[in-house]
Amino acid sequence: MAARKEGECCEDLRRERAKCSFNKEELTHLMDGGKDKTLHRRRIEDIFLADPEFLDPIRPEYMSHEERYDNELRKACHMVRKFNENEDIQQLVGEMEGIRSLMGSGLGVALTKDGNPLALHFVMFLPAILGQGTVEQQGYWMSRAWTGEIIGTYAQTELGHGTFLRGLETTATYDPNTQEFIIHSPTITATKWWPGGLGKTVNYAVVMAQLYTQGKCHGVHPFIVLIRDEETHQSMPGVTVGEIGPRLGMNTNDNGFLRFNQYRIPRTNMLMKHSQVLKDGTYVKPANDKLSYGTMVFVRVAICFDAHRQLQRAVTIATRYSAVRHQSELVPGEPEPQILEYQTQQYKLLPQIATVYGIMFAANDVWNTYNEVTENISQGNLAYLPELHALSCGLKALSSTDATNGVDVCRLACGGHGYLATSNLPRIFTTTTAAITYEGENTVMWLQVARYLIKSYHDAQKGHRLQQSVSYLTTQSASAHATADLSNTALVAAYKQAVSVMVSNAAAHLQDHINKGAVFEKAWNSCSVYLVKCAQAHARYYTCEKFVDGVNRAELSEGTHTVLLRLCRLYLIYHITINQGDFLRCGALTGGDISSLEEEMADILAALRPDAVSLVDSFDIHDRVLDSTLGSWDGNVYQRLYNEALKSPMNQTDVPQGYYKYLRPLMKANL
Amino acid sequence: MAARKEGECCEDLRRERAKCSFNKEELTHLMDGGKDKTLHRRRIEDIFLADPEFLDPIRPEYMSHEERYDNELRKACHMVRKFNENEDIQQLVGEMEGIRSLMGSGLGVALTKDGNPLALHFVMFLPAILGQGTVEQQGYWMSRAWTGEIIGTYAQTELGHGTFLRGLETTATYDPNTQEFIIHSPTITATKWWPGGLGKTVNYAVVMAQLYTQGKCHGVHPFIVLIRDEETHQSMPGVTVGEIGPRLGMNTNDNGFLRFNQYRIPRTNMLMKHSQVLKDGTYVKPANDKLSYGTMVFVRVAICFDAHRQLQRAVTIATRYSAVRHQSELVPGEPEPQILEYQTQQYKLLPQIATVYGIMFAANDVWNTYNEVTENISQGNLAYLPELHALSCGLKALSSTDATNGVDVCRLACGGHGYLATSNLPRIFTTTTAAITYEGENTVMWLQVARYLIKSYHDAQKGHRLQQSVSYLTTQSASAHATADLSNTALVAAYKQAVSVMVSNAAAHLQDHINKGAVFEKAWNSCSVYLVKCAQAHARYYTCEKFVDGVNRAELSEGTHTVLLRLCRLYLIYHITINQGDFLRCGALTGGDISSLEEEMADILAALRPDAVSLVDSFDIHDRVLDSTLGSWDGNVYQRLYNEALKSPMNQTDVPQGYYKYLRPLMKANL
Repeated sequence: MAARKEGECCEDLRRERAKCSFNKEELTHLMDGGKDKTLHRRRIEDIFLADPEFLDPIRPEYMSHEERYDNELRKACHMVRKFNENEDIQQLVGEMEGIRSLMGSGLGVALTKDGNPLALHFVMFLPAILGQGTVEQQGYWMSRAWTGEIIGTYAQTELGHGTFLRGLETTATYDPNTQEFIIHSPTITATKWWPGGLGKTVNYAVVMAQLYTQGKCHGVHPFIVLIRDEETHQSMPGVTVGEIGPRLGMNTNDNGFLRFNQYRIPRTNMLMKHSQVLKDGTYVKPANDKLSYGTMVFVRVAICFDAHRQLQRAVTIATRYSAVRHQSELVPGEPEPQILEYQTQQYKLLPQIATVYGIMFAANDVWNTYNEVTENISQGNLAYLPELHALSCGLKALSSTDATNGVDVCRLACGGHGYLATSNLPRIFTTTTAAITYEGENTVMWLQVARYLIKSYHDAQKGHRLQQSVSYLTTQSASAHATADLSNTALVAAYKQAVSVMVSNAAAHLQDHINKGAVFEKAWNSCSVYLVKCAQAHARYYTCEKFVDGVNRAELSEGTHTVLLRLCRLYLIYHITINQGDFLRCGALTGGDISSLEEEMADILAALRPDAVSLVDSFDIHDRVLDSTLGSWDGNVYQRLYNEALKSPMNQTDVPQGYYKYLRPLMKANL
Repeated sequence: MAARKEGECCEDLRRERAKCSFNKEELTHLMDGGKDKTLHRRRIEDIFLADPEFLDPIRPEYMSHEERYDNELRKACHMVRKFNENEDIQQLVGEMEGIRSLMGSGLGVALTKDGNPLALHFVMFLPAILGQGTVEQQGYWMSRAWTGEIIGTYAQTELGHGTFLRGLETTATYDPNTQEFIIHSPTITATKWWPGGLGKTVNYAVVMAQLYTQGKCHGVHPFIVLIRDEETHQSMPGVTVGEIGPRLGMNTNDNGFLRFNQYRIPRTNMLMKHSQVLKDGTYVKPANDKLSYGTMVFVRVAICFDAHRQLQRAVTIATRYSAVRHQSELVPGEPEPQILEYQTQQYKLLPQIATVYGIMFAANDVWNTYNEVTENISQGNLAYLPELHALSCGLKALSSTDATNGVDVCRLACGGHGYLATSNLPRIFTTTTAAITYEGENTVMWLQVARYLIKSYHDAQKGHRLQQSVSYLTTQSASAHATADLSNTALVAAYKQAVSVMVSNAAAHLQDHINKGAVFEKAWNSCSVYLVKCAQAHARYYTCEKFVDGVNRAELSEGTHTVLLRLCRLYLIYHITINQGDFLRCGALTGGDISSLEEEMADILAALRPDAVSLVDSFDIHDRVLDSTLGSWDGNVYQRLYNEALKSPMNQTDVPQGYYKYLRPLMKANL
């Protein structure tokens, strides 16, 4: 199809593509996880993108808030019906994983652009029942939820409570007389706030609430709660529910609020796979309270891949535009050059392409570890959980931050046109940045990583063996130069040395504060800015190492290997130059080393420049998924910008109503 | 009035305010430029904010694109009529300066929230006539434009052409037979694109076009062009005009496009203060082509003050919220602390408060220089222009970048609630970030600064005397430690030494490339990433120096002086730790120095913590100007969030239409 690869394009892009030094398909397959998976992805994209039901009558930005929701709900329901009614599609897409990934960041963003009101039903409600319900509960609720007979969401955060689970205020008090739980919101801050789909769409929610039975609080537990009448969709008596209003982005997933006034649900609606409340109110503890760890890790790795895909889209748009846009003079008298010729532009874009791969290799690694660890957990071995937890926290924070910053660099690299909605960069930014906050706010994530680093450091001091990702904390860093050369191995060693010294400094600072009489927690807080830096340096080191390993291991032809190696090298050097103080202070690198690396970086930018467009082409993003006037395959930027502007509802009439109402009276006032 | 200072507030904020160690009013006066100016500002705010015509029927985010424009146009027209019809207000506000500042970033953002369709009439159209029209032209056009009889904008950028003025394609060809100019858009990329108010509002525009007469092109000149019929407001034959569609922000200033098809205007519509075309087509050159420099400098300094005000708003919101929000545990078992207790949160917010002052002191200094230089220009002395140009470019880029990043840090520091439109942080971000691109894209700005630095460096080598802001380039930097202590003076000296070494390195790199055979422009491009870093370091040094000078000079009571000195110290250290490599590599500071500064920074954060809320209070921002559920004076955050959500049009009915249309058929499909 014309929108992918084989279509015509403008002369500038044709020349760029002719320069390609590597095999684009190889990189596409590497990214998809194999040739079969690439073909499979393309088939699914073709089926869904060919369906006219997924087109918008006008751009959502022109619509009112209500109209936008209505439009996306229409498409979301169509997606589910299409899936339910067509066995071929079910087979092609796969079962639950499939529809979840459909709704996720890949194809899903092209189908429902600014948030899908049904997403949390598949991404959170169904998994919560599966993960936390008994077999009996799964049987009853899954059969109803899977077909869409009931639609649910997951209600955890409250108006006054986010990341800190223990702070939740909603209560579920067991009444043995009626064998019911009384769900209640005791304060305004107890109002459930944020769950997607909660505002208007769902009729059920898994509600997290403090469980009280026999006069004791047993902490937060999950309950399936009927929110709206199954027949009329009216909110239930005792339930106040609505949407929380407009946001920076993702405006169509009707994030909602929810309050309970002594609202009763049957005892059996508590999800009892782990803990139970018996008929008489006896509380039965879970056998192991680390079992729900897995879901959080899964979600955080998924966020890394989301970030990776969003950054792919942004850098594809900005790179193609930079090959089409001509501006200023490089040499007086010569024609305006493509802005991609400017070193400053290359420095904005090429590190983002490298970051796409960095995130991918690191996330793949955590994903593999996750699968191994899950295997271990089922065999009762929990030793790897802390490492996995720290890795997933660190990479979630690193990838969401890097992707957000990278997307914004790409937006700004397109000048004014990057500010236009039709560039799609605004929406990519507003979606990507949300991940900094949700599913574990990044600063909280960094401090979790830091906790693991400090603990591991002390374990090493005691002679314990450390897990792989922190094993470098064992070897006391030499104050001397890490290695004599500046090879990739040497640079990764320098990264390790830098973090190692930083962690040891942080531990010393902590001890200082404690020696001066501070309790541990206060000491921790007093060092927390520095601890965050340690955590960030650790996640960066880890990503660098996995990037180097990944490139070395990938089976690629020589040209493809060379270009990927250049990206990897760029990534290593780029982050050293940004954080050069960390390397200089510990002696891992000298000022002379950094100067050499700066010069090498300039050479790498120049070497990668001819492959820039082909590199983003190899991300293989369908024009409909890019959805950008600036980034489309054909590079027909200006005509697309103009044509899109002509579609504005304001341009359907020449003279606006406001002229007669406001402007004319003003303009004629003094005549 | 309740919304400013004297009102009730929640217990958390009351306690914060009780801790204040300084005189808030002193800082307010310092920022306004004197006590009189503070009182004057408040009087104007009170008059305009008391007028119910400036209220929105519902939040603009709920409206369609067309409705938003209509709503802001209503308020914009009301503002001008209120001004025109009321002599008291005219006297109070002042003449043109007054209405321009009304529409600008202070009160204006509270009146027309997402862009004012009439802003460019006052900010660009009128000044263009004044600055570029002959006395005769001023007399005719100003009298018509000042009362609003005609409404105009300024049309310079084109679809294919931004910062590079010489690249503009629109032509104005003189026809001596009819004594007319023929305005024409020869290509699609020649389409005028972006001017505010152009889409639907204005009937005139100052159009920048390549002047052709007697067969020769004389470069870009300004022409007053009738766009829409003065009686019917219909677009003129030969003119195609419309709005360019939705954007990341500022969606109600109807940015427009404009194309001409051999469109004729009278010869006398060329603005001829500087250049002229005589009746027979003879072109008369301007006496001095540097005279229009001034406007650009003026606009760039204005952008610094905009950035400063936007950052004030964001950090006020985030700081008050951080005093009201309680989360997690600092010490196990104790109640959840205010999030302002966390060092990581202090590190996010307090440097932003410092930045507000840093931008202010630096921009004040450039503003004063501008006024001196303007005096000199009128006396024929142009020697200071390059310095002023470089300073205004550098500060425009620094302040728009710092403010954008700072606003986003503040948004993220509010967690999920910062993503809500009612926090107002999304709009503050989308407005502030636009300044990175408009009126001189920042990378272009940095390279202008770098050009001045390299030129000054070579001048110094030749023994020439340098202007004040770059005089440090004269003294060849010692490789040794700048000074023995870490006083403010020593740190400013370290900043100077770092830039000095960087500029000298950059000059050497440039020479290297030239020695290897590159033409200057290619050599320049090959070093441009590093040159941008030099320019950024220079602007930072300059801001630090002006901050230190400004605090030293300000006449303040002791407590107020102490708190301002702390902010200044924080600013100096904060940016050293971020760019520590620059200081380490040139030997200006040692690793030990940086460690000491890091420890001192932790102490400063703790010392400033009790004054944080009072510091943002002293910005004296009216609740209506803040327009934030999270930031209001009373700190009644949760109730405001909830009340605002209840106002959503989607919450006016329980069951949405989409249920009957899409959800119910899906949910009942299998029953």
